[in-house]
Amino acid sequence: MATLQDLGIAAAINIVVTFLFLLAFALLKLQPINHRVYYSKLYINGLRRVGSKGDQKSRRKFLNLDLKQLKIFMPLMLLGFMVLIPVNVTDNNLSKMSHQIYYTNVDKISIANVQSGSQRLWVHLLMTYVFTIWTCFMLYKEYKTVAEMRFEFLAAEGRRPDQFTVLVRQIPVDPDESVNVHVEHFFRVNHADFYLGHQVVYNASKLVKLVKKKESAQNWLDYFQLKYARNPSVRPSRKRGFCGLWGEVVDSINYSAEQIDQLSKEAAAERERVLGDEKAILPVAFVSFKTRWGAAVCAQTQQSKNPTLWLTDWAPEPRDVYWDNLGIPYVEQNIRRLLVTGALIALILFFIIPVTFVQSLANLDGLEKIAKFLRPITERHFVRSFLQGFLPGLVLKLFLLLLPSILMLMSKIEGHVSLSMLDKVTAAKYYYFMVINVFFASILTGAAFEQLNSFVHQSASEIPKTLGNAIPMKATFFITFIMVDGWSSIAGDILRIWPLIIYHLKCMFLVKTEKDRENAMSPGSANFDIVFPQVELYFLLGTVYAIITPFILPFIIVYFGFAYIAYRHQVINVFNPEYESAAAFWPHIHNRIVASLIFEQIALLGLFSSKRAADSTPFLIGLPVLTLAFHIYCKNRFEPAFLKYPLQEAMTKDTIDKALQPDFGIKSFLQNAYTHPIFKTEDDNEESRHLQSSEDQPTLICTTRSTHAKKVVPIIT
Amino acid sequence: MATLQDLGIAAAINIVVTFLFLLAFALLKLQPINHRVYYSKLYINGLRRVGSKGDQKSRRKFLNLDLKQLKIFMPLMLLGFMVLIPVNVTDNNLSKMSHQIYYTNVDKISIANVQSGSQRLWVHLLMTYVFTIWTCFMLYKEYKTVAEMRFEFLAAEGRRPDQFTVLVRQIPVDPDESVNVHVEHFFRVNHADFYLGHQVVYNASKLVKLVKKKESAQNWLDYFQLKYARNPSVRPSRKRGFCGLWGEVVDSINYSAEQIDQLSKEAAAERERVLGDEKAILPVAFVSFKTRWGAAVCAQTQQSKNPTLWLTDWAPEPRDVYWDNLGIPYVEQNIRRLLVTGALIALILFFIIPVTFVQSLANLDGLEKIAKFLRPITERHFVRSFLQGFLPGLVLKLFLLLLPSILMLMSKIEGHVSLSMLDKVTAAKYYYFMVINVFFASILTGAAFEQLNSFVHQSASEIPKTLGNAIPMKATFFITFIMVDGWSSIAGDILRIWPLIIYHLKCMFLVKTEKDRENAMSPGSANFDIVFPQVELYFLLGTVYAIITPFILPFIIVYFGFAYIAYRHQVINVFNPEYESAAAFWPHIHNRIVASLIFEQIALLGLFSSKRAADSTPFLIGLPVLTLAFHIYCKNRFEPAFLKYPLQEAMTKDTIDKALQPDFGIKSFLQNAYTHPIFKTEDDNEESRHLQSSEDQPTLICTTRSTHAKKVVPIIT
Repeated sequence: MATLQDLGIAAAINIVVTFLFLLAFALLKLQPINHRVYYSKLYINGLRRVGSKGDQKSRRKFLNLDLKQLKIFMPLMLLGFMVLIPVNVTDNNLSKMSHQIYYTNVDKISIANVQSGSQRLWVHLLMTYVFTIWTCFMLYKEYKTVAEMRFEFLAAEGRRPDQFTVLVRQIPVDPDESVNVHVEHFFRVNHADFYLGHQVVYNASKLVKLVKKKESAQNWLDYFQLKYARNPSVRPSRKRGFCGLWGEVVDSINYSAEQIDQLSKEAAAERERVLGDEKAILPVAFVSFKTRWGAAVCAQTQQSKNPTLWLTDWAPEPRDVYWDNLGIPYVEQNIRRLLVTGALIALILFFIIPVTFVQSLANLDGLEKIAKFLRPITERHFVRSFLQGFLPGLVLKLFLLLLPSILMLMSKIEGHVSLSMLDKVTAAKYYYFMVINVFFASILTGAAFEQLNSFVHQSASEIPKTLGNAIPMKATFFITFIMVDGWSSIAGDILRIWPLIIYHLKCMFLVKTEKDRENAMSPGSANFDIVFPQVELYFLLGTVYAIITPFILPFIIVYFGFAYIAYRHQVINVFNPEYESAAAFWPHIHNRIVASLIFEQIALLGLFSSKRAADSTPFLIGLPVLTLAFHIYCKNRFEPAFLKYPLQEAMTKDTIDKALQPDFGIKSFLQNAYTHPIFKTEDDNEESRHLQSSEDQPTLICTTRSTHAKKVVPIIT
Repeated sequence: MATLQDLGIAAAINIVVTFLFLLAFALLKLQPINHRVYYSKLYINGLRRVGSKGDQKSRRKFLNLDLKQLKIFMPLMLLGFMVLIPVNVTDNNLSKMSHQIYYTNVDKISIANVQSGSQRLWVHLLMTYVFTIWTCFMLYKEYKTVAEMRFEFLAAEGRRPDQFTVLVRQIPVDPDESVNVHVEHFFRVNHADFYLGHQVVYNASKLVKLVKKKESAQNWLDYFQLKYARNPSVRPSRKRGFCGLWGEVVDSINYSAEQIDQLSKEAAAERERVLGDEKAILPVAFVSFKTRWGAAVCAQTQQSKNPTLWLTDWAPEPRDVYWDNLGIPYVEQNIRRLLVTGALIALILFFIIPVTFVQSLANLDGLEKIAKFLRPITERHFVRSFLQGFLPGLVLKLFLLLLPSILMLMSKIEGHVSLSMLDKVTAAKYYYFMVINVFFASILTGAAFEQLNSFVHQSASEIPKTLGNAIPMKATFFITFIMVDGWSSIAGDILRIWPLIIYHLKCMFLVKTEKDRENAMSPGSANFDIVFPQVELYFLLGTVYAIITPFILPFIIVYFGFAYIAYRHQVINVFNPEYESAAAFWPHIHNRIVASLIFEQIALLGLFSSKRAADSTPFLIGLPVLTLAFHIYCKNRFEPAFLKYPLQEAMTKDTIDKALQPDFGIKSFLQNAYTHPIFKTEDDNEESRHLQSSEDQPTLICTTRSTHAKKVVPIIT
């Protein structure tokens, strides 16, 4: 086990590294060449206007999270240092047992130093209550504030297409009618007074590919023309074959121009085919209503006898739609989810193997016993400290860097239809992964290495005891982990080290035109799927160790402090949100904090029972039950605010709108809101995929056969 | 352990008893004096018309249940007898171990006779798959049929008040408006086009008491007058004091007439007070809509920002409302549920103590070892068989007879607002009780008595093994249990033995007038809360033992056969339903059958692993996962049919109604539908609690101040 000295060296290294990073940040952000990296939002805002009000709100919420966590842990740290550490230090369990196990002075100030059956454990029990009640109180207040802010935000917002629109999936096949007409008839009958119109979704994946190819060819053309203009003596040429590596030599400018021509024709033909072919229409539609009330009703009710048909949900914001997944049928989606869940479990379990190996390095004392030949190396003090304090966290971190993109891919395969949902489920996957593979694997495997004999044939009911015993032992490891993973990754985040490197590499090798330079630095959105699970993991660590080893709390508080500063800068100056979350992440965070609390209580139950403090068991069993009751209450009271739009709110906003702008043309406002972006960018002037039908039009202009041959269909009134 | 001979004697006793009961039934039902007991429905139907169509449907569904279960078990029994029993019999595990444990020939044809690690277990594995797939297939078909029948039934039904009405609870207190006006304003604003009117609910519990007292006094008066008319020489007299036992002697007829006068005045005063006092209005209302569509929308959506206010649900049928619970606030209701859950757990655990004692009697072999002095008695063959086969089940049954009323009381305390819901939750409680206290306690305690040493310090992960080992051992006990509890209780049910005795006792001692005789035989409704859990328990037994001891199946099939005959008679000739369930119980039954399947699979997993057939474990682990997937699919696909009313259905029915009866006065139809029955029976001619407000009335006649002083309030349009 690492000693306080080891920790001191590690903390010093990490603090130096962190400050170097911050210094580098201060220097780099002054260089104009890096401005695109550190102030990307300013560049973006110069180009297009981002709803700054919504930004403000979501930013404030995001930052509140960190501040609030400081709020939770600060008083606890003070209490912990004032009460628990003196209680622990003055007992002498470990010194009595020193012939049996290794211990360090970090362990000496933890609960491990309290003797079995000691009356001092009552102090810990009392502190557990204080901690639980304080956390629940803060959580309740925060949930309430966030829910109110969400409603305020939604109420203050202007008209947005998603407020009036419902995403309808699983439209059944009708042998007599096209999807287009079927949707029209269904909603005209069943939502007679509120239906405004709808937009069908085309299967445009092939068209998207063609357009992308064309854009790339266009870029090459620009590049070659620029090159030629700079140096008119040499007309650029390339080979016709794969990647220009072999084949007939041709003139580059002409070749690219030819390619563009060819691709333009193909894209146009594909457009024609998609828009003309009924089979290219997916059984999905965005149905718009005249009022928010009508949309709220449609989104919250069951439409058909078969609850797996005509599924209605709030439409995501247009920019939030993930178009590729819209067409996946219900049953397939469920099968995909089942398979992905299986794959996720396999991934989580499989990852344990390398992590186990890395963790075994973290415990040099244990390793030395097995591999004696390593002793000459590990005996050297600095090497030892370095390995103990730095290496295990770093290797683990490298593993974790690969992960988010795999998990995002899995989420995409699951078939969610909005980017926000993808972020949410990816965040959940990442969190589970980290809890199992960082937290549990570290606790159990690491400890198993020490107490292998007593651990192997453990049964389920013994798990709380096992955890309770193992957790205090791993405090040192997690302290170094917080420093390496937490502190320096935050520092790396604020430095935007990867975007910086990639941006400059791109500028050196790839950027051919000014347009390329613009594209080279995409600011990215706030990476909720990575950031939230990390914050939640540190919260879990803080919760679990708050009573057992309060010494860990200052490290976590420093982490949250750094995180607050870093993300504040990022949200204000860098990120360009892909969608407006309106605090939709909060319920997930809340749930995980409550789960952490319950986990902590169970672990303490195990620890106490192995400390032979059986008198206290009834007092501890009550806590998870009460925490669960608190959770259920919060869920019922606040969660619907994040899922449903109450009719009263909808009606109020409708009434205000009507009073302020009685003549607002809602129909033209919604006209093309949910057109696939590929059709929008291609030709804004064509009139083919307009919102179908309206009340003042007694006929329906139906464009399913062809974009040009319009068909007149009588409608039911 | 009981031998086949013991079982034979027990079966003979039980079959004789059952046939005696059936014979008695055949004789008794011919006596005209018993007609009220066996054909109560005919008497009722003579008096009032019961929706016979609805009856037919629910009856058919109810009967289907039993037939279907026969359908599930019959082929399995055949397969079990043809495949599993030969496989089991021809192995000889038990005879090898006969020096260690007691066994009988029932055990010899069970899985216990298969040697550990034998390849024969693959046959059992295969049969488990066949059984699971067959059961799931039948369940799917049945769920589909039931859901379709439910929709057909709902579609064929005539206009009913509950189709247009929503029960609104948690109406917030408004300092400026009465509940009455507040509800009116809220729904006129937020459901402007559909709101028809509403009825508030009065806290009339005191009035109900007074009216009951008055009715009793009226009955006494009738009795004394009749007595006097028959024997005019003696004018009946009684004492004024408590129960007529002491005090001044008075003339009975005058005394009763005085009492009636007094109570009439008190009741009238109380009526006046309730209807005039705003505080007597509960924050609850039945809100009616012009169309089913409007009601469906309101019932399925969230009304207000705070999801614990303005809670809307489908109103139960008027006769199904449990008025006493309407006023319970949301938070109080949740606290009540928490407390009742705690009480239920305590009840379930506490009951284990007597059951354990009774179960210990069931195992005479074990008992003899401990209490040697009993041997002379228990050695006698008939006593032994009697005790083994009859006593344990009977004592258990007596315990269980007390239970349903306690559980129903608990459910009432929980605060459910309809009788159907009360029946559902009571049935659930009763089922959990029986599973824990009959099934698990019998398996574990009985077996613990034999294998105490190996059982005491069992840990959680070992539980499947423990169950797997214990279940085959208890087959004999459950066979006798099925005979005693199942067969004869069904025979008792069809004989209506308690109602018969009570009816005749009442006729002898209590019935004073013809009206009393009518009241003496209330047919009761179908006691879903007792019948369903019983059927489910036997289904659990059948499922668990289908593979392990298929010998149990014929007993269960006989039970289901009896049950089919008995309940068929009851539903057709006896019961008078309190409400129309429209198969609303089916999802619960389905869920419990699936739970039984999963339990069986887990127990088999344990059994197989203790039989050292580890190769088969991966094949068995897949089964619960697949069964769970099946369950989730069924839940998503069919369960909403029992909870929500799809808008398409509502709209279709509205349209048909409108086409057939364009001038139907929906308002007068709904006028008094949800008036507390106490006000209805008292004075149908008063006009005070009419449905409030309508669209053709520009003013609202508000009756909150007094029944006579009408107040005119302007309304918002």
